[in-house]
Amino acid sequence: MPAAIGPEIERLIQLLARLPGLGPRSARRAALHLIKKREQLLSPLAEAVRVAAERVVTCSACGNVDTCDPCSICRDDRRDASILVVVEDVSDLWALERAGAINARYHVLGGVLSALDGVRPQDLSLDKLLARAADPAVKEVILALNATVDGQTTAHYVTDLLASLSVKVTRLAHGVPVGGELDYLDEGTLSAAIRQRTTF
Amino acid sequence: MPAAIGPEIERLIQLLARLPGLGPRSARRAALHLIKKREQLLSPLAEAVRVAAERVVTCSACGNVDTCDPCSICRDDRRDASILVVVEDVSDLWALERAGAINARYHVLGGVLSALDGVRPQDLSLDKLLARAADPAVKEVILALNATVDGQTTAHYVTDLLASLSVKVTRLAHGVPVGGELDYLDEGTLSAAIRQRTTF
Repeated sequence: MPAAIGPEIERLIQLLARLPGLGPRSARRAALHLIKKREQLLSPLAEAVRVAAERVVTCSACGNVDTCDPCSICRDDRRDASILVVVEDVSDLWALERAGAINARYHVLGGVLSALDGVRPQDLSLDKLLARAADPAVKEVILALNATVDGQTTAHYVTDLLASLSVKVTRLAHGVPVGGELDYLDEGTLSAAIRQRTTF
Repeated sequence: MPAAIGPEIERLIQLLARLPGLGPRSARRAALHLIKKREQLLSPLAEAVRVAAERVVTCSACGNVDTCDPCSICRDDRRDASILVVVEDVSDLWALERAGAINARYHVLGGVLSALDGVRPQDLSLDKLLARAADPAVKEVILALNATVDGQTTAHYVTDLLASLSVKVTRLAHGVPVGGELDYLDEGTLSAAIRQRTTF
């Protein structure tokens, strides 16, 4: 890049380009957009990123990210303490919370087992999960893992791990997504939806 | 959004979602990525955005963005002061600089005339352009505007505006893009490439 872009702007572009979903070209567009919208966007973003860098921590109990530790979900007394929802990543926790799917506590594994990516059991937050699931207050562990090969492998591994405890282990239902059209669904989903049909 | 995402993270997501190229979902992914890569990405980005917010200004002469005013291009004595390259936006200036296409000065219009978008001549940096082009040192104004209807309308408007001056007004060549395949080009480009053919 020639001298036309000063080092300060260049640095901003380079950092933005490392965000998922932004390449070099869209990072340039984003940087220019930020600079043009100084009052509405650039200054507020500077503040928001600074606050996040200073204050956001990972919850030592469940692996969620928040500005307090334990996180606000782990602190929330109104949540059902008898259910632990195991998710791969914080983004999955967010997705379940957006859906308002369940009012329980979570446990973020921080990944799934993967021979290809070299993710082994010791890379995941399994010891903490075992300790939490051993709490007599916990009656059920819901494995809310992705319905991918790695996700399901991990689900089986975690099920084996929890077998010695008196806790009930469940997993998400497979079936037709709400709003989904049968014609566009794969055979595996359709078979599962038939097998696990419910009375109308 | 329920309380699962704290207000600090929520604010970061909302601001990131306002960047071009990022929607709500990718903004969440980006925010989570930032939080996970605190040392490598979040803290440096906080610093880069802060520096940009504090120091980047718009050049009062040409409309470029830089940390000094006049910008480093306007200050650069090694640039050909006899040529002004008129562009719609700073991103176009950056594109020409990346290409190393010309070692001259620029003038950023800040948009193009558009009846649909309600952009009128007084919304563009035309007075400044007229004043700069009236400088006896300036011999040529290159209209490096997009080959769109609005871009070409603006080019004609600017040409009329500069007609009273003794400055030469040129525009970018139309033709086959380098690396382009004829079969994929539109008729307008092919006709222009034939009309403006050069000796081999």
